[in-house]
Amino acid sequence: MTYDKKDFISTQDLTREQIDYILNQAMSFREINQREVKKIPTLKGRTIVNLFFEASTRTRTSFEIAGKRLGADVINISSSTSSTQKGETLMDTVKNIEAMASDIIVIRHSYSGSVKFVSDNTDAHIVNAGDGLNEHPTQCMLDLLTIKLQKGRLEGLNVTIIGDIAHSRVARSNIWAMKTYGMNVTLFAPPTMLSVGVEAFGVNIAKNMDEAVSNADVIIMLRIQRERMAKLLIPSEREYSKLFGLTPAVMQKAKSDVMVMHPGPINRGVELSSVVADSANSAILDQVENGVAVRMAVLSFLAMSK
Amino acid sequence: MTYDKKDFISTQDLTREQIDYILNQAMSFREINQREVKKIPTLKGRTIVNLFFEASTRTRTSFEIAGKRLGADVINISSSTSSTQKGETLMDTVKNIEAMASDIIVIRHSYSGSVKFVSDNTDAHIVNAGDGLNEHPTQCMLDLLTIKLQKGRLEGLNVTIIGDIAHSRVARSNIWAMKTYGMNVTLFAPPTMLSVGVEAFGVNIAKNMDEAVSNADVIIMLRIQRERMAKLLIPSEREYSKLFGLTPAVMQKAKSDVMVMHPGPINRGVELSSVVADSANSAILDQVENGVAVRMAVLSFLAMSK
Amino acid sequence: MTYDKKDFISTQDLTREQIDYILNQAMSFREINQREVKKIPTLKGRTIVNLFFEASTRTRTSFEIAGKRLGADVINISSSTSSTQKGETLMDTVKNIEAMASDIIVIRHSYSGSVKFVSDNTDAHIVNAGDGLNEHPTQCMLDLLTIKLQKGRLEGLNVTIIGDIAHSRVARSNIWAMKTYGMNVTLFAPPTMLSVGVEAFGVNIAKNMDEAVSNADVIIMLRIQRERMAKLLIPSEREYSKLFGLTPAVMQKAKSDVMVMHPGPINRGVELSSVVADSANSAILDQVENGVAVRMAVLSFLAMSK
Repeated sequence: MTYDKKDFISTQDLTREQIDYILNQAMSFREINQREVKKIPTLKGRTIVNLFFEASTRTRTSFEIAGKRLGADVINISSSTSSTQKGETLMDTVKNIEAMASDIIVIRHSYSGSVKFVSDNTDAHIVNAGDGLNEHPTQCMLDLLTIKLQKGRLEGLNVTIIGDIAHSRVARSNIWAMKTYGMNVTLFAPPTMLSVGVEAFGVNIAKNMDEAVSNADVIIMLRIQRERMAKLLIPSEREYSKLFGLTPAVMQKAKSDVMVMHPGPINRGVELSSVVADSANSAILDQVENGVAVRMAVLSFLAMSK
Repeated sequence: MTYDKKDFISTQDLTREQIDYILNQAMSFREINQREVKKIPTLKGRTIVNLFFEASTRTRTSFEIAGKRLGADVINISSSTSSTQKGETLMDTVKNIEAMASDIIVIRHSYSGSVKFVSDNTDAHIVNAGDGLNEHPTQCMLDLLTIKLQKGRLEGLNVTIIGDIAHSRVARSNIWAMKTYGMNVTLFAPPTMLSVGVEAFGVNIAKNMDEAVSNADVIIMLRIQRERMAKLLIPSEREYSKLFGLTPAVMQKAKSDVMVMHPGPINRGVELSSVVADSANSAILDQVENGVAVRMAVLSFLAMSK
Repeated sequence: MTYDKKDFISTQDLTREQIDYILNQAMSFREINQREVKKIPTLKGRTIVNLFFEASTRTRTSFEIAGKRLGADVINISSSTSSTQKGETLMDTVKNIEAMASDIIVIRHSYSGSVKFVSDNTDAHIVNAGDGLNEHPTQCMLDLLTIKLQKGRLEGLNVTIIGDIAHSRVARSNIWAMKTYGMNVTLFAPPTMLSVGVEAFGVNIAKNMDEAVSNADVIIMLRIQRERMAKLLIPSEREYSKLFGLTPAVMQKAKSDVMVMHPGPINRGVELSSVVADSANSAILDQVENGVAVRMAVLSFLAMSK
């Protein structure tokens, strides 16, 4: 069994075996990251380009560290310095980067579907680092790895996702993969932040916070993606926090060993109270740690394929 | 025979032997770029600084990849983070970078002549990555390499350059080197985009598109450099495209094996129709590929000299 | 004797032995920087993150070169791409970077005390690359190294600091360490640029330029930190230059072998005349050169500690 796709774009068509394969490989990279000398020559002499059309600290840094620990040369290109400002198409930008003998291009873009479109039209290996409201598949992999490491399994677990689901590519990637893995997914959100027709994906919709948290093994909190919302629809922080925030009071109704996760950056006092963010239940920094390992796995699979 | 200059600033004073020497070395670097492991230790332990005062994806990335594949440490400095914002002179900025024991400084700047001025006042090796309207000599080298690889020779070939020649440092660098190499250069452009007195350089001026393309072995298309033009002088895209764009209809009048080149980024539907850009005649992505090899050659010559 | 602190935040609590230890190590790194192959594997496999919330060419580049010459992977994060724009706290940003198994985080921030606060709340090694008006301790170390290399000693030397002392973290870091080392420090500045109560630190306040320079072995000039001043308080350049600028006329009153230093970037014709900046007395570029060596020393001590 190997990961035999050219690209890493979506969790929607990943099989359970492919997910297992990535998580297992990531676990061994996790050990390398805990060493003093965190470097292996797997991708020495390969070129990885991070092509980010949206600002990002966490994801770009995580991919950059992952690539460098594997020995690759990593090049960062951000939208502010990009030729698209001079009228170049996205596809031409990518073709240019490919022509420089780049092995893997990691793309973040604000348009849903753009990364898939690119991957269909180039021979370069493409990794989706977030495309609009659509998907963020490496974030999903690191979420699964974090859960598996702590709970010892994935199948049968109850996961609740709370917050701005409609604008969350993290939620979408997670829903596909979690359903594939036989996990029970519950959503809780203000009506304006819940995608129409999302029930069709086999998820439960909670009616209130109590129902959302009481049976959960894992709670994934999402921040409000203001940058993707019409101004009139942005709720007041105080109101949102009261109705949809995860506070110590709400945690009283959850299982004592519930995992609290968040893709970050967190807004303390809005969707997540500081006490909860810093509590023993919080796995938020484990997610960040596992993100590097998961990306090392994805990058090394792609570079080795074909 | 070696390349024995301290800097790489202009094609105006390059001899045919020096050009040959660079192209030959670039051809061997081209092979390294086609390997799986694209890395040699030629410049290991050397420091290359990309000092870019103008936004650039392609050129900066190409130099960065070239330097890293040679094993050098590459540092990027862009104008937005530069101390010139705090009142520092260009020369002081460069002297500072040199003082950090940098081996090669690659400079792009919006003032014509600025890179030559800098190179005359520092011991560091300086590469011109584009200075205002003046020159872009590594672009010229990659153009020559691309032509030579496809046509098997340079001397005697007919090259036509079409478009915004007055604002094109690419055109200027190409004209010098192509004349040195005994190539026949024809220009075609709107009157507002043709430098006054350019005939003195031994080039032909075509009177219409037919004359421009009918006898050409190579057509180099240029984009309109809006960012360098007075607003009133910018033509409408539709009008420009009709009169100076390279379309399938125009291509009917050209030789069947004519090479179509463009320094990029291309504006599809303006100076170049999509059909032509993606046709078998197009060598645009070969240019990008060869750019890395040519820059590896220039960087390695300079680092080895003195 | 070793440098046994987790962080490098301040010169205020550095002992003379610790300073000696850093300067001695820096001297050996200086020699590596003068070689053709400027690279040693001391920090191979370690990850260093430059987290800069203020624009900087010189300091960021110096740290980046220092880290790379030691063989580390160096990641740059600037405020413009940072998640703090999405509402993340500074501490959460740092915790995230630490979670990616970063060994050393180099921080520049506009708030005085912010870097100390961060270092108290993380296990990662933290280096202060400038925090508001407070300290810039690696700049102090490079100043001391530059003086020691030229004068052969530090103790007993007369150092005069002239200019915008109130807004200068360089002045503050230097005052602490120079007093520790038994150097005599004199300050000269317009009243609006002199911190209230600074006499308590055991420094002399000069009453005029003559008194400031006549007995000095070293003169450190500072630029006006416009970006930190209320607009109404910014003096005219012409007036400032006349009263507080270091000109050839002023230099006539100084010792013939006085060293002229400046943390850069310099504003020629304002605090420093071009003739003086480029004279044999100027050690400004030596400072820049020594900056890389000092930062290599600090980074390698921290990575080796614990």
